[in-house]
Amino acid sequence: MVERIDSMRGELRRGMLVLAVLSALREEQYGYSLRKVLMEAGIDIEEGTLYPLIRRLEAFGLLSSRWTEGEGRRRRYYKISPEGEETRGILLNDWDALGASIAKLTGDDA
Amino acid sequence: MVERIDSMRGELRRGMLVLAVLSALREEQYGYSLRKVLMEAGIDIEEGTLYPLIRRLEAFGLLSSRWTEGEGRRRRYYKISPEGEETRGILLNDWDALGASIAKLTGDDA
Repeated sequence: MVERIDSMRGELRRGMLVLAVLSALREEQYGYSLRKVLMEAGIDIEEGTLYPLIRRLEAFGLLSSRWTEGEGRRRRYYKISPEGEETRGILLNDWDALGASIAKLTGDDA
Repeated sequence: MVERIDSMRGELRRGMLVLAVLSALREEQYGYSLRKVLMEAGIDIEEGTLYPLIRRLEAFGLLSSRWTEGEGRRRRYYKISPEGEETRGILLNDWDALGASIAKLTGDDA
């Protein structure tokens, strides 16, 4: 039972992670700083989940990236692309619409 | 590209369908009437998606059902169970928390 609830909670969460990452990357971030921004917004995401997601979004053309070098360390910075902005707008609209539906179905105890 | 966006939109939607169905079934409904309630709340879901979802939720113990007979037709009515109410509360909390995170990340253009 707990497993089933966890899987439903995970599904709900996965669906909005893309929107969260795209939103966070309207400001350029590298992996660790992105993870911090998400955590500050209340989203605790493991590196093993976040980094593959970033790579997937970049492969889709929704993010652009560049390498920087400084203080002896190389960092890869990511930022949302114009295509990513467009996708983010669509997902944000969906999110708002789904939220309105949930509120309607939930009625006054929302 | 359109395919990828569609798959992300689908993921976002799937994650909240369980919450929507559980919320709608705080009042007893049969398949067709449930679909109507969801549509009135803005959620257009195909029978081929809704009916397997209902069966899955019942198998998990989150819904109870009963058969009725009248005017020559049998109908199976569904209602949320106490376990379903508990799960619904958890998912609704998650939904609210995720919404707060998205709002924080999205800032003033939400």
